[in-house]
Amino acid sequence: MKAKEKLEKLGKDMVVQIHAGEGPTFETTLRTKGNTIYDEGLGCLRTGDKKELRKYLSVAQARTFMQTVAIAAKSKTFLEQDLHTSIRGLFYQLKFSLGEEMDEDLFTEQSESNALIEDLEVALKLKREDLNLTTDRKGFVAGGMTIRDRFGGEETLIDLSKQGRSGWSIPSDVDNGMDIESLDAEWVLVVEKDALWQRLNEDKFWKKENCLLVTPKGQSTRGTRRLLRKLADRKLPVYCLMDCDAWGWYIYWTIKTGSMNLAYLGRDFAVPEAKFIGVTMSDIEEFKFLDKLTIRAKEVDIKRAEEMLGYPWINRSKDWVHELKLVLKTKKKIEQDALQGERLTFVGEYIKKKIEGKEWLK
Amino acid sequence: MKAKEKLEKLGKDMVVQIHAGEGPTFETTLRTKGNTIYDEGLGCLRTGDKKELRKYLSVAQARTFMQTVAIAAKSKTFLEQDLHTSIRGLFYQLKFSLGEEMDEDLFTEQSESNALIEDLEVALKLKREDLNLTTDRKGFVAGGMTIRDRFGGEETLIDLSKQGRSGWSIPSDVDNGMDIESLDAEWVLVVEKDALWQRLNEDKFWKKENCLLVTPKGQSTRGTRRLLRKLADRKLPVYCLMDCDAWGWYIYWTIKTGSMNLAYLGRDFAVPEAKFIGVTMSDIEEFKFLDKLTIRAKEVDIKRAEEMLGYPWINRSKDWVHELKLVLKTKKKIEQDALQGERLTFVGEYIKKKIEGKEWLK
Repeated sequence: MKAKEKLEKLGKDMVVQIHAGEGPTFETTLRTKGNTIYDEGLGCLRTGDKKELRKYLSVAQARTFMQTVAIAAKSKTFLEQDLHTSIRGLFYQLKFSLGEEMDEDLFTEQSESNALIEDLEVALKLKREDLNLTTDRKGFVAGGMTIRDRFGGEETLIDLSKQGRSGWSIPSDVDNGMDIESLDAEWVLVVEKDALWQRLNEDKFWKKENCLLVTPKGQSTRGTRRLLRKLADRKLPVYCLMDCDAWGWYIYWTIKTGSMNLAYLGRDFAVPEAKFIGVTMSDIEEFKFLDKLTIRAKEVDIKRAEEMLGYPWINRSKDWVHELKLVLKTKKKIEQDALQGERLTFVGEYIKKKIEGKEWLK
Repeated sequence: MKAKEKLEKLGKDMVVQIHAGEGPTFETTLRTKGNTIYDEGLGCLRTGDKKELRKYLSVAQARTFMQTVAIAAKSKTFLEQDLHTSIRGLFYQLKFSLGEEMDEDLFTEQSESNALIEDLEVALKLKREDLNLTTDRKGFVAGGMTIRDRFGGEETLIDLSKQGRSGWSIPSDVDNGMDIESLDAEWVLVVEKDALWQRLNEDKFWKKENCLLVTPKGQSTRGTRRLLRKLADRKLPVYCLMDCDAWGWYIYWTIKTGSMNLAYLGRDFAVPEAKFIGVTMSDIEEFKFLDKLTIRAKEVDIKRAEEMLGYPWINRSKDWVHELKLVLKTKKKIEQDALQGERLTFVGEYIKKKIEGKEWLK
């Protein structure tokens, strides 16, 4: 069923309830920590089976129920108009329709109460992108791939090997109106930082090694995660080069298993096949020059390392345990930028050596 | 004189000083607030004429002097190698060469002590981009312009009217190895937020109105400011649509006059020709639906409005004074996203009406 039909069914079901003299309800899956599980089979986080029935005729739920229905109605209009907007645009549309009753803090992109849209995503089993709601975009790609983009009434073919120093900006939605037209790359390299992406792009690393060069530019957006999932579905191995610190690990594990608070997105936004090739504290043994390029670990790095040692899907990997314990012992960390310390072009050599030697954390 | 020659001259002059039995020195322009002026003729901020002579043989200056020279030496190598890196990459190169003496906090992108590189920029009268140092990039463009990009040993033509939903990402450096190959647009529209840029891109506003659609995505990067300067040099009018709040005003005035702390960049990074078309508090009189879409001004908005009323280049504009006083009086503000409140496609109509009616703040 398409998004518009799902929204119509949601509304019609409520009308039936009202005609039957009942208050309208809608069922959604609990997104609490207690209902978040690591799925061994899938290799990623997902929500469990616990359901919740939301009622309009409930003092505690009436207001958000009404707002959720209002969002559904607006989304249906956006789909009919074939127009997109951001969560902030949606907020003003609702404020215009519903007037002064809107609580603006409910509708900031950063706000927890993305919750209202997450409710709809989970209840209708679709993505907010399917509701013509755009989210923040951030990452870049260069390499042998051509994208067919149908947008704003036009169709464009974009050759990601011909984007110069800029690369192709990964949009909010890589599914609706967008296809991979052709693919001439054998694997995917994900580097945490845009600065390193630019370094490797200047070296034309993606061309020499026939890979796609991707940066999420920090934490991955939804668009970047979906694109990586689609590339993994085409059997391209995905290798990740991150900082060896709290933030780098978190970015990697979000790509691989999803994150706790967005676990409801499940495998559609996760790449369990992803491999961590570096940087690692153990690298110092192999690449001696890195020894003087470590920096002091911060409190947050130490805390995160301890936390990760508690996750069963991490602590069963002897490589990861060894790595995290090294950080805890030495109280040091190492950034991917350090790979440029001796020679700017060393980064590419490092990556090749790691992949050819299958030196990723197992 | 090219960057490499300037760096060589800097070194040779110091060698002459040393052979003459003197300690090496270098002269730079003071970047203090006291030496920052608003240049009436140029219509932007710039540093004044006060100079400072830095001495190596000074207990207070020896360390940073040495570091500045080390940066100059590294930059010269980067130019010779024809390779680029970030400030973080430079930090690790220096750490590798100079060892443990480096203070890492001196070399974070965000750090005040960008100061070392700013010293070189000012002393040598060049941009850090000319030293093959990349900075953060952020903005996007769509429209009738083709860019010739020579990068990493290849040359690419990029047609900014064929970038689909993504647009072209404005790189760190739009000068070296980059030219505007062809331009088929009559004016430039700058919208503060990427979300609104996407909205207008979907409407193909740039195509219908024959303009270039630019978003700095918040505060402008150096690359975005340089690009806007280059477009203004080609006599394209630059119209800005920002939030009516502290942040939106700041983004606009940075584009127009430069900012206090980067005043040394002068007119090369400023667009005194830029015009502010909205949103404004006065818009409510003309577009009644906006009345219920205002939101409460925050402390920072009020403070900023008061501060701006103190700047001579702002308070001589009766429109700006009226606008800022309205904010102070009503304690409200209005976001550009609010223009979508009634109809998603209204944004474009608003912009057209503003420009056709010459309704910018004078």
